[in-house]
Amino acid sequence: MGNELAIITLTTDFGLQDPYVGQLKGAVLTGCPTAAIVDLTHAIPAWDVAAAAVAIRTSYCFFPPGTIHVIVVDPGVGSGRAILVAAGYGHFFVAPDNGCLSLLVADRKIESVHRVERPSFFTPTISPTFHGRDIMAPVAAALARTGDPGQFGPAVAPASIRMVNLPQSAHVAGCLQGQVLRIDHFGNLHTTIRVGPAQLEPARFDYAEIGGQRISRLAWAYHEAPPGALLVLVSSAGYLEIAANQASAATLTGCRPGEPVTVHLGRTE
Amino acid sequence: MGNELAIITLTTDFGLQDPYVGQLKGAVLTGCPTAAIVDLTHAIPAWDVAAAAVAIRTSYCFFPPGTIHVIVVDPGVGSGRAILVAAGYGHFFVAPDNGCLSLLVADRKIESVHRVERPSFFTPTISPTFHGRDIMAPVAAALARTGDPGQFGPAVAPASIRMVNLPQSAHVAGCLQGQVLRIDHFGNLHTTIRVGPAQLEPARFDYAEIGGQRISRLAWAYHEAPPGALLVLVSSAGYLEIAANQASAATLTGCRPGEPVTVHLGRTE
Amino acid sequence: MGNELAIITLTTDFGLQDPYVGQLKGAVLTGCPTAAIVDLTHAIPAWDVAAAAVAIRTSYCFFPPGTIHVIVVDPGVGSGRAILVAAGYGHFFVAPDNGCLSLLVADRKIESVHRVERPSFFTPTISPTFHGRDIMAPVAAALARTGDPGQFGPAVAPASIRMVNLPQSAHVAGCLQGQVLRIDHFGNLHTTIRVGPAQLEPARFDYAEIGGQRISRLAWAYHEAPPGALLVLVSSAGYLEIAANQASAATLTGCRPGEPVTVHLGRTE
Repeated sequence: MGNELAIITLTTDFGLQDPYVGQLKGAVLTGCPTAAIVDLTHAIPAWDVAAAAVAIRTSYCFFPPGTIHVIVVDPGVGSGRAILVAAGYGHFFVAPDNGCLSLLVADRKIESVHRVERPSFFTPTISPTFHGRDIMAPVAAALARTGDPGQFGPAVAPASIRMVNLPQSAHVAGCLQGQVLRIDHFGNLHTTIRVGPAQLEPARFDYAEIGGQRISRLAWAYHEAPPGALLVLVSSAGYLEIAANQASAATLTGCRPGEPVTVHLGRTE
Repeated sequence: MGNELAIITLTTDFGLQDPYVGQLKGAVLTGCPTAAIVDLTHAIPAWDVAAAAVAIRTSYCFFPPGTIHVIVVDPGVGSGRAILVAAGYGHFFVAPDNGCLSLLVADRKIESVHRVERPSFFTPTISPTFHGRDIMAPVAAALARTGDPGQFGPAVAPASIRMVNLPQSAHVAGCLQGQVLRIDHFGNLHTTIRVGPAQLEPARFDYAEIGGQRISRLAWAYHEAPPGALLVLVSSAGYLEIAANQASAATLTGCRPGEPVTVHLGRTE
Repeated sequence: MGNELAIITLTTDFGLQDPYVGQLKGAVLTGCPTAAIVDLTHAIPAWDVAAAAVAIRTSYCFFPPGTIHVIVVDPGVGSGRAILVAAGYGHFFVAPDNGCLSLLVADRKIESVHRVERPSFFTPTISPTFHGRDIMAPVAAALARTGDPGQFGPAVAPASIRMVNLPQSAHVAGCLQGQVLRIDHFGNLHTTIRVGPAQLEPARFDYAEIGGQRISRLAWAYHEAPPGALLVLVSSAGYLEIAANQASAATLTGCRPGEPVTVHLGRTE
């Protein structure tokens, strides 16, 4: 099952200003020179484990099975927190045990988890401030070569890993209440409300309320609103998104992450 | 003509803050795991089709023949606008039919254009807000495997695709009038004035006027001006550039994109 | 010794806003289509040769032997300044002779240096403002194919190349005096003080003084301080770092690059 043409994705809070991402890639290539390394994002807010958990949950599935996803958002670096290798449905994940992988576990995407304990896989000299480079990168490279997560240490129950708490959405008095989780580069507001049978059936949508504004246009795509006008749609990750056609919904609404969003439901059913 | 070692470049307005570029790469690699993906730029201003057209026009030729260039600047995503596969002199281009490819057509670099219509190449579930990931990426991957643009749909005339209007330069009363098209990371001002027989012969340059300042130093390279001094030179893309030696011409002139530039011509010929 | 699977790293001051990095990669791939190109960083401050010299000194060693490191921070582009190919302990470096490689020479990591003189390796048309793309990239690609730095031009003595002057640290009256060299994405302050027998033995550390604040907590890792509290530790590059647990030391101290740092030494030995 080893794969010297492995694809390895990186998700970090390192930014691109420093040579840290480059060093991480060097460490991966030192262990597996033929790996194809892909940046998922390095713009996770510093130390924001929940944002990393969201990014990997909504993105890993666009890569082919066999891909190894390395997540280095690690405020506890150098402490006793474990480093994990998780596997599920052909994908592998290497991350600290701090919640980065917990949404995958919650979504039942993880079949096995192993704790990384065998130092023979690590860089000979380990910086206590950069386990991504000195432990996780060589572990990912070894995984690319062998495909065997069991070689790094003992299995642990997926349910035993650390979880992050994301804000939940809830039905209250004929409404669905959520909040803005993140704002993207275009100013689109990504909310906590999942579209689908479990949370929001589009057919039941009446209007959304955010920052004192009502938005009743529910559409498939941005162009369905006039340029500059707000609309509500299903994001490319499957969540309720408040956007505008060729304009920033963040600017138009003045909203920031954490802003409450209320969807008023009609009596369609 | 298929090429599993294909090079695929990406030009988008996605920025690097979100995992969208990573998802796009995952979709490419799902269809062609051995492709080498290169970021041309992800900093096209949001929805700025003309800027994307300029970026690809000035950059594609530095890649080897056989390269597939994917441009995802797509304000009409999810609408009926077509997606095109263009080919010319060994290069391939995948982009929406919104003007992204029009400067290549104007430069007579495109030999054939096909409209992408066969959904068998697409991702099974298509998000109406992310055709880059769900249509253009798998099409580029299929093109990398087969080298056949005809497989995606019918041929259309290159002259029939949508054009963008760029500000033009013009000769007026012994002067050449243009404007600042973009400002780069160093603060260099890139103008619409092409250097060469058709527009500006360097031998006829007398002085340039911009933002109330006269610049008469025409040079080959930045170091020919004293540190901090303005000069005029030919950009690495072949256009008139107003720059400064180890300083920002944008700061020194206070100019922004759209600022008029006048080149006063001498009577050399 | 040629290696068509060569790894080529890029260190520039280009930023990621323009297509310059993409064009540089295209030029590398034109000469060596199978090279794996890795961004070390493109965020070197514009024209800051010393910052480039520091970045490559602290990062190249995390890549496998055989890697070719291209450094394009080149305020003298188009002038008579030489372009160099240096080699040392299995690594190769391509850079202008302006100091970019001088810290590697100072650290005795360079065994040979050749001056690039034979235009047969260059792009047919060379822009005087973009030697990275038109000279250094094709040279790096040729080096990847052949592994022979001698083919580009004559050998020169490593000691003869241009040096950069970095601020030095010094022992003064029972103290070690240095300064802040750079501030990273997390707000960590990286100083000029090297940790080790030659400069600062951790056992002799009493407290550090910076911006009017005393910091006496010397730790291995960030988590050893309470969240938001300052501490001193050894950076992942081996230098004294002033940091905070999940907070920005730059914000907490109000310090910027160039700020003096004084380490008061105890009488442990």
